[in-house]
Amino acid sequence: MATLELKRDTPGLSDVPGFELAAAACDIRAKGDDRLDLALVYSSLPCQAAGVFTRNAVKASPVRICQDLLKKGGAFHGIVANSGNANACTGAEGLRDGIDMGRVAEEATGSPADSFLVCSTGRIGETMPMDRVRKGIREAAQSKAASPEGSRRSAEAILTSDTRSKTVTVRAEIDGRPFTVSGMAKGAGMIQPDMATMLAFLATDADASAEVLDRVLRRSVHDTFNAITIDGDMSTNDTVLLLANGAAMVPITDERSETVLHDAVHAVCDALADMLVSDGEKITRVVEVRVEKAADAEDAEKVARAIGNSLLVKTSWFGGDPNWGRLADAAGYSGAALEEDRLDIHYGEIPAMIGGRPQHDRKPEWKAVVSAPRFTITIRLNLGDGQFRILASDLTEGYVNFNRSE
Amino acid sequence: MATLELKRDTPGLSDVPGFELAAAACDIRAKGDDRLDLALVYSSLPCQAAGVFTRNAVKASPVRICQDLLKKGGAFHGIVANSGNANACTGAEGLRDGIDMGRVAEEATGSPADSFLVCSTGRIGETMPMDRVRKGIREAAQSKAASPEGSRRSAEAILTSDTRSKTVTVRAEIDGRPFTVSGMAKGAGMIQPDMATMLAFLATDADASAEVLDRVLRRSVHDTFNAITIDGDMSTNDTVLLLANGAAMVPITDERSETVLHDAVHAVCDALADMLVSDGEKITRVVEVRVEKAADAEDAEKVARAIGNSLLVKTSWFGGDPNWGRLADAAGYSGAALEEDRLDIHYGEIPAMIGGRPQHDRKPEWKAVVSAPRFTITIRLNLGDGQFRILASDLTEGYVNFNRSE
Repeated sequence: MATLELKRDTPGLSDVPGFELAAAACDIRAKGDDRLDLALVYSSLPCQAAGVFTRNAVKASPVRICQDLLKKGGAFHGIVANSGNANACTGAEGLRDGIDMGRVAEEATGSPADSFLVCSTGRIGETMPMDRVRKGIREAAQSKAASPEGSRRSAEAILTSDTRSKTVTVRAEIDGRPFTVSGMAKGAGMIQPDMATMLAFLATDADASAEVLDRVLRRSVHDTFNAITIDGDMSTNDTVLLLANGAAMVPITDERSETVLHDAVHAVCDALADMLVSDGEKITRVVEVRVEKAADAEDAEKVARAIGNSLLVKTSWFGGDPNWGRLADAAGYSGAALEEDRLDIHYGEIPAMIGGRPQHDRKPEWKAVVSAPRFTITIRLNLGDGQFRILASDLTEGYVNFNRSE
Repeated sequence: MATLELKRDTPGLSDVPGFELAAAACDIRAKGDDRLDLALVYSSLPCQAAGVFTRNAVKASPVRICQDLLKKGGAFHGIVANSGNANACTGAEGLRDGIDMGRVAEEATGSPADSFLVCSTGRIGETMPMDRVRKGIREAAQSKAASPEGSRRSAEAILTSDTRSKTVTVRAEIDGRPFTVSGMAKGAGMIQPDMATMLAFLATDADASAEVLDRVLRRSVHDTFNAITIDGDMSTNDTVLLLANGAAMVPITDERSETVLHDAVHAVCDALADMLVSDGEKITRVVEVRVEKAADAEDAEKVARAIGNSLLVKTSWFGGDPNWGRLADAAGYSGAALEEDRLDIHYGEIPAMIGGRPQHDRKPEWKAVVSAPRFTITIRLNLGDGQFRILASDLTEGYVNFNRSE
């Protein structure tokens, strides 16, 4: 693999030449505060684009709008996104409002029709306060700039229950010619495989077709954004977008260059996905669940998801309790092929179960592993070569209290 | 349907003529206390029997033992069951111990070999303290009696984190000849569709073959014990057993009599399942989720389970928050066919969403419904005739705290 230079907590998309950013405060929640809740991503150079979306049958209006625009194809100039209102379950009116957001952004930036992608995140079923949103979009279009300040503000504007903004920038090169991939994301709740109330926007100055971007993004999302779980709920709004403006004059035209672009995009997705779990609602621990030697990759994924979403497993992580019985139980009901007397379970490097037999004398060592804020659990089924890895959080009293009402 | 007389909180299986019960305190948890943790069910008349078990691939030893005995068939004389240790993930030693429990019960009651079914519930992965268990079984065999006292004690001995014992008795008749079905159960945690750390023992004095009992029990379990969820975790030990000793001389030989027996067994299962959810670990609300007009029954079940297991839905129930957006979201990711603009959601009788459109003006009425300790939610997909109903609990801070360590 070519050398990649990865930095977290960068300004974000302004690290990519040609991208201008801005944010505005529209008081979308009608709380009378000046919280930033509208973000604008803009490139005067036309971009190729790709997107990956929630598979929820109940899709927010912006998701349907983005899917239509990407299917139609063409050149894109930006993304307009808001927090505070998901514009989901809002019927024909919501669809009109989402389309209107794109139009206002296009007019305000002097861009052609159908060149802005639209995203929303927040409460479901509320009508968008479009007067304030339109005003905010126009303000943002006025103030957009290729500056760290605007970029930082836009990464903040998409947050909901997140406690901090999430940005990553990767520098890579092909044949000595450098290019950049940068991303920002928001997460916090409704986080589960197949994404969540999760938005991630990536930009690059590499020069790639929509087909290449689509392939690169899908491959990257599979084992990053789609391999995390906080609460097992898949949202109506999950969206990952990738824009490429070609400013770096690095053409992605063959398998070798596509691999380099993939590695860079994957690195950004991986780092952002990790930041999403680490900033999950009221979590106290991050656990990497590695499933190995399953009959096939699908079975490995089933076991990893069953463990990562089990309430009893997640509460035991919260308690720092090495309750491997709950791991075996969840693996057992995952639907994967499993033979109890072949099952190995490790906390970090310490065996808890080997060939179905508990290793009771190692208990103090298990305890030491699961007391850390971050640790790894390995489940080995010894039935084949399938493997999958998921990043999961614990479940805390704080989460329950936080989500009991909005 | 013939008249059934149903009573809750009865003494339990001693209500059925010919059944003798007893309990003992074996200190299975090695805590030095005298908590009852061993139950004995005995009938001197030979019984036909049927069982339904967890579908978890990791099955406790007693589950495997019961499945083998029932497959072999024959006459049964009772059940020996313990709480405090699940005898799961205990390898060949655990299998020997489970078999030994049955043998000791058979010897101590003077019953033939392979005539006792065995059940365990409690912590996974611990070796059974067989010396104390053998002693307890012999004590129980000595003290067994067809008395309410012994029966009440046995219903108490199978409990783990339950706060109260659960018993139901139904009297029914066929052609003027009365018979009885009675049951006892324990539940509390790891409760999810396809059963849970859940044991239920039913006895009847009707005279039915193993085939009839199997049919009647399977049909009864489907929409009772398999249609409840507390935490979505399916355990290694779930077992429902039904014994029939024929003492009432009421032969079940045709469709008509089988229907009456089914109705009686179903009523016992339904009442016990309801008691299990109502006594779920640290719950504060019980919610009946009715899914109607789905494309088919399987789709209806998917939607009901997705809603009943969604952390965000369950925490909003805890908060008494009518967050119908989370219901629509969970229905959307359930995997069922769903068209958003046909979706109706009701809290009790109050519409929250009709044809995909929120009915915001009814919000105070929704709030009144979800503030009750028990309420109904109806999701209508308007795509076909499929329906399913699930009984679910909320998720509380108390649950998380209770399960953080054992």
